[in-house]
Amino acid sequence: MTQRRVGLWLVGAFGGVGTTVTLGLSALSRGLIKSTGLVTALPDFGKLGLPEAAQFVVGGHEIRESSFVDSAEEFRKNSGIFDADLVAACRDDLAAASARVKPGVKLGAGPTIAKLGTWGDESAPRTAAEAVDRLEADLAAFVKAERIDHLIVLCVASTEPPFQTRDVHQDWNALNAALADGGEDLLPASSLYAIAALRGGHTYLNFTPSLGASIPAIYQLAESTGALHGGKDGKTGETLLKTVLAPMFAHRNLNVMSWVGHNIFGNRDGVVLDDPSNKASKVDTKDRVVTSILGYKPQTLVTIEYIPDMGDWKTAWDHIHFQGFLGTKMTMQFTWQGCDSLLAAPLAIDIARLADVEKQRGRRGLMRHLSCFFKGPEGVEENDFFKQYDDLLRYVAQSA
Amino acid sequence: MTQRRVGLWLVGAFGGVGTTVTLGLSALSRGLIKSTGLVTALPDFGKLGLPEAAQFVVGGHEIRESSFVDSAEEFRKNSGIFDADLVAACRDDLAAASARVKPGVKLGAGPTIAKLGTWGDESAPRTAAEAVDRLEADLAAFVKAERIDHLIVLCVASTEPPFQTRDVHQDWNALNAALADGGEDLLPASSLYAIAALRGGHTYLNFTPSLGASIPAIYQLAESTGALHGGKDGKTGETLLKTVLAPMFAHRNLNVMSWVGHNIFGNRDGVVLDDPSNKASKVDTKDRVVTSILGYKPQTLVTIEYIPDMGDWKTAWDHIHFQGFLGTKMTMQFTWQGCDSLLAAPLAIDIARLADVEKQRGRRGLMRHLSCFFKGPEGVEENDFFKQYDDLLRYVAQSA
Amino acid sequence: MTQRRVGLWLVGAFGGVGTTVTLGLSALSRGLIKSTGLVTALPDFGKLGLPEAAQFVVGGHEIRESSFVDSAEEFRKNSGIFDADLVAACRDDLAAASARVKPGVKLGAGPTIAKLGTWGDESAPRTAAEAVDRLEADLAAFVKAERIDHLIVLCVASTEPPFQTRDVHQDWNALNAALADGGEDLLPASSLYAIAALRGGHTYLNFTPSLGASIPAIYQLAESTGALHGGKDGKTGETLLKTVLAPMFAHRNLNVMSWVGHNIFGNRDGVVLDDPSNKASKVDTKDRVVTSILGYKPQTLVTIEYIPDMGDWKTAWDHIHFQGFLGTKMTMQFTWQGCDSLLAAPLAIDIARLADVEKQRGRRGLMRHLSCFFKGPEGVEENDFFKQYDDLLRYVAQSA
Amino acid sequence: MTQRRVGLWLVGAFGGVGTTVTLGLSALSRGLIKSTGLVTALPDFGKLGLPEAAQFVVGGHEIRESSFVDSAEEFRKNSGIFDADLVAACRDDLAAASARVKPGVKLGAGPTIAKLGTWGDESAPRTAAEAVDRLEADLAAFVKAERIDHLIVLCVASTEPPFQTRDVHQDWNALNAALADGGEDLLPASSLYAIAALRGGHTYLNFTPSLGASIPAIYQLAESTGALHGGKDGKTGETLLKTVLAPMFAHRNLNVMSWVGHNIFGNRDGVVLDDPSNKASKVDTKDRVVTSILGYKPQTLVTIEYIPDMGDWKTAWDHIHFQGFLGTKMTMQFTWQGCDSLLAAPLAIDIARLADVEKQRGRRGLMRHLSCFFKGPEGVEENDFFKQYDDLLRYVAQSA
Repeated sequence: MTQRRVGLWLVGAFGGVGTTVTLGLSALSRGLIKSTGLVTALPDFGKLGLPEAAQFVVGGHEIRESSFVDSAEEFRKNSGIFDADLVAACRDDLAAASARVKPGVKLGAGPTIAKLGTWGDESAPRTAAEAVDRLEADLAAFVKAERIDHLIVLCVASTEPPFQTRDVHQDWNALNAALADGGEDLLPASSLYAIAALRGGHTYLNFTPSLGASIPAIYQLAESTGALHGGKDGKTGETLLKTVLAPMFAHRNLNVMSWVGHNIFGNRDGVVLDDPSNKASKVDTKDRVVTSILGYKPQTLVTIEYIPDMGDWKTAWDHIHFQGFLGTKMTMQFTWQGCDSLLAAPLAIDIARLADVEKQRGRRGLMRHLSCFFKGPEGVEENDFFKQYDDLLRYVAQSA
Repeated sequence: MTQRRVGLWLVGAFGGVGTTVTLGLSALSRGLIKSTGLVTALPDFGKLGLPEAAQFVVGGHEIRESSFVDSAEEFRKNSGIFDADLVAACRDDLAAASARVKPGVKLGAGPTIAKLGTWGDESAPRTAAEAVDRLEADLAAFVKAERIDHLIVLCVASTEPPFQTRDVHQDWNALNAALADGGEDLLPASSLYAIAALRGGHTYLNFTPSLGASIPAIYQLAESTGALHGGKDGKTGETLLKTVLAPMFAHRNLNVMSWVGHNIFGNRDGVVLDDPSNKASKVDTKDRVVTSILGYKPQTLVTIEYIPDMGDWKTAWDHIHFQGFLGTKMTMQFTWQGCDSLLAAPLAIDIARLADVEKQRGRRGLMRHLSCFFKGPEGVEENDFFKQYDDLLRYVAQSA
Repeated sequence: MTQRRVGLWLVGAFGGVGTTVTLGLSALSRGLIKSTGLVTALPDFGKLGLPEAAQFVVGGHEIRESSFVDSAEEFRKNSGIFDADLVAACRDDLAAASARVKPGVKLGAGPTIAKLGTWGDESAPRTAAEAVDRLEADLAAFVKAERIDHLIVLCVASTEPPFQTRDVHQDWNALNAALADGGEDLLPASSLYAIAALRGGHTYLNFTPSLGASIPAIYQLAESTGALHGGKDGKTGETLLKTVLAPMFAHRNLNVMSWVGHNIFGNRDGVVLDDPSNKASKVDTKDRVVTSILGYKPQTLVTIEYIPDMGDWKTAWDHIHFQGFLGTKMTMQFTWQGCDSLLAAPLAIDIARLADVEKQRGRRGLMRHLSCFFKGPEGVEENDFFKQYDDLLRYVAQSA
Repeated sequence: MTQRRVGLWLVGAFGGVGTTVTLGLSALSRGLIKSTGLVTALPDFGKLGLPEAAQFVVGGHEIRESSFVDSAEEFRKNSGIFDADLVAACRDDLAAASARVKPGVKLGAGPTIAKLGTWGDESAPRTAAEAVDRLEADLAAFVKAERIDHLIVLCVASTEPPFQTRDVHQDWNALNAALADGGEDLLPASSLYAIAALRGGHTYLNFTPSLGASIPAIYQLAESTGALHGGKDGKTGETLLKTVLAPMFAHRNLNVMSWVGHNIFGNRDGVVLDDPSNKASKVDTKDRVVTSILGYKPQTLVTIEYIPDMGDWKTAWDHIHFQGFLGTKMTMQFTWQGCDSLLAAPLAIDIARLADVEKQRGRRGLMRHLSCFFKGPEGVEENDFFKQYDDLLRYVAQSA
């Protein structure tokens, strides 16, 4: 019996998360690293029938002409991460995966992202329809060439500016009709990728705060093709902590007066988030969780600042000012010094593995049980990390 | 119908927690403060039939000749807590409660605690039996004088040195027989109070790391009299955070390499904990929870240091060093600046209220559902705060 | 011989600094507090002939109809500072000083400050000339009524927006001529106060980042009247630390790559700084010092955010990312939790005392030796705190 | 004219500081790194006639049979420092230096250090005299073989336990006479090295808190041979910050109530400091500086804990509790995350360069002007970093 082959198509492939995912899958396949950081490697997930690292075939779209090896070297140099020996040992796999990365589309990505690279600019699609057709063709070619049993399109691209939805985004027929003439304003690039994936019946996962599949029209498309989807915005660091700590304050009936969070970091995502409109998307999901968990609105403040010398190291300082008994004011502060891509990559692999389990079981539609992986879990109100994790374990118990 | 009267007998009454409990109950009765910090004031607990603040009658034992008002003033001066107007408004209640505090016993409390005060030294009991008899008589007199329906003895005294149990502590008959001649070495003072409480059929709650009722012999005594009991060591600050954060690291499969926690504070408890033998009890329960939750033993270090100028403000700095994907080392640090007595007091009131619900329902024995309130929950292996809290909610659902 | 009487005229009298200065002078006069926080109380300053607290007579201008007692009570309630007993003991002095506070002018103060109060609105001056005349008359009346030997006008008002100077601000004759018709745009309010003070030959000290006397035209005015002046922007917390730590990095040849500073606080100054244009003045002086000391420009970021529940407690988190030997990246972080008004007030008293020494010696013009008290020391390039302090000690050695 | 050759003899050569010094000198000679971290590379020191990196010839003593390359690789692996390419480029220099390292002596080093290695155990000297003779012979052989113009013996070995001096340590004749039969108790190993160096007229520098040359008897020896010496205990991280921040609190007349400092780190020095008696030496010098600068004794607490997973990264958390005006209590906290060996190595090079300048000038005896490099500067009372640095600049001005 041939082993199942799972395609993992990375949108924004040569970025930090994409590179770490690709390096990590190679290193895991070769037995060079432990499974630290992979939720799905915990004993509770042992009987799910998860695909192994070696079953994944990586491809992707990019707008920067680069390679996984170059990207890994850049990370080594700027952020002091990725052991030189490890990159060397995985060099062939990285090269093979790089060869499967195709020029992406920028239509609707906004000016700051557009400036990151020029790969494919010479044949840039002029309409949304052209863009989707080309993306879809790339996916189909990959499936055919690599004999993929299940293709998962995973958005790990830079954060787009917030997008204001209109009537046309409420209905697939209307949106589909609009694609033909659709320009910059019809949809953000992330949604064009989502349409291309779901129209082909492939699974779509959105690890970013960009719009992606998160509009009624695209939900309807997914329903019609029976595709799986889930998102959005991976919960990796400061926001994870917020959804861990806020329940404690709630359960102890401590009154949070203000929660201030300042984030600094210096990777390419930072270049993009340095544009205030792109940043707005990120701040929004980061900010909402505390209020959602506490059930009331303390003063909240979230900043994200681009400090190039920090490299991939994201440092967050949070100051939580709260009242205890007799109204006494007290303080908790934390600093989180995490390497962004290395926190995100294993979770991206986790959701891909879990999506494949659903595919094997013949399921379709929105995967709500993945909520613990996301800052803005789609179709789920709950932001308490532990309740979300309980939901995942409940799913595992039912599925195993 | 007369309203139920619940006696709350504070062992170590004039300490920070005892004083705050007494002031808080008065302020709550008079509608002067909100219920911030009281877990049992959360909506989930609304239908339990909990006793209200006004139903509590406070008494207690002490070895320092003082009063609740003097203690409150000392806190105001040294730690900048307790609003002057609030203390003034509750002055009569505090005076009345002070009048119900009786000289305690020091037998077995160890030299550092013994130095704190001399109240009652002139008539100090010479044997354990004498001590228990006198304590029990004080409790009985209080019940009678105040027409108490349910008496709860709550240990909020200073932390005793660790106590090495022996064969005699495994069996109530043996221990009971030994009381007659029992001196300093037979039992710590906290256990004498526990015996006095439970022998009289009263509820015994241990908010400290001292031995209290936590030996088989005293469990047997409780069983024989049908008394309720629970403990031990209130989970108020740094340890609470450990049991909140450690599950996150576990669920994300992040490998905690070391967890260092340094605590500084300056209240009277600090004077006692400055004695290394007393401190050992505290460090032990603080240290154990991380390993218990993670399922493996990272390097752990816990210090507690007495810094008088800090007053009641306990500041903890924790440094958590962990590995993520590809073995990458990352760091989380937090500082917790909490007012110790004000974090502890509402939880002490919570467990007293919950104990009274059990009493009303005719239950007996160890109250395992209180685990989320304790650093070392008796009869419960689980230290994950959220699982403990789920247990409490499950109890509430079954009891309401 | 009658004792010298020094008038201290506070612009923005009922604010945090003004209130603390007034309370502090009263408490010092009455021997109720130690001299902690007063630089001029250090032994090195013992032979200067400094005026004592009891020699100061406080008056001032305000735009909010209030009193020192009300302001002190507000601080007690919101920020947990000022002991109730201390305020009570100084109540008479505070009342007397309150009676000496007159309605100020808002002309040129900007809309955010103007919204703070309405005192004196009914007789608001319509031109700059009218404003200056009225302010000058208030000062003269105070000098006469209180038999003041030396009047010091000290600006402790809210921070105004940055002001773009023009040709008219380069020359006193031109500016003086323009006052007659001068409206909102001619000068910020702080400069009207400066003109009123200096035209009358009084000393002017600017403890804020507002423009005040800091233009050539007003320097010329001071020269012509022989008045003393100095500023600006008191160096109290985060910026003090920057000017203490940056020299260390410089002397150790450590390469500071980025210095990020986030400030949160919640007093009235915060309301004003919440207006981005007012905030810009403050961020500017806070940001410049690091580059000035290091001699090169690292990436710097300074935020100041208004978080009302913080009250007067200003918390700063600074993250300093630097390279050591072999280019190794290292990190220093600090959090400073200081009470803003209580850090500022003694320094305000210090510069008033030192200014009086100069007056006694018959000096005139800009007091450069006060640089260690200011974020933006006028007439001085040096921002290294220790070099500034050495300058002050050198002055003391020469003057004593 | 042949270029001056300066011998740098590292006691504890293969440790972190020794390895970094050797790698750094090689990298500087080859122009591979900038001079970041080297104080003597600042413009102020430009005219002193300092020896260049290429003029240094490294040798040393060790008790572990290893090499600079192996040690560098260990650091790369455990602490993520030292770029692989850099080590490769310097490999030949490191190998050559390794060949110049000889087995050291353990006599008097204490049991914890003795356990670190066994190199040279087979021919271990039995008496102090034998030890000193052998060490001196090694130095002489090195000078001869490498045609050294000036030999500097630099102690960068592990910290020895505190040593209680006796009468015999007050006088060189007495001590010299005692060497013949001297065993473990006569002198710590560090002092045997100091005697060997100074008896040969070489320069001795002590970068550790061990006793070294710091007794009257050895001072007399240095005087008799005209040798230069200086120490002790390099001021690299937390203590540097103490001597930077304490002057600020002093100059602002802020009353420091307590200064708590907790240090964690995981390099080999940590293994040794994990022995409480070795640790005591270190804590002592770290603790003394604050009191010395403030002029009064606040409560101080210093811990150093060995946390292996931290590698060479020393993290210090300091909590400074102080009173400002009106006795208001405020707090400053800092965390310092520095790489120990990389902070120490450039300073070790600095003092060697500065010592050579003195040698060129024909000076002899204790070099007091190096105080800013040391936690416990010999012959100098001043601990204020900026006053110490001013002393150094004054020396430079006089010497250039």
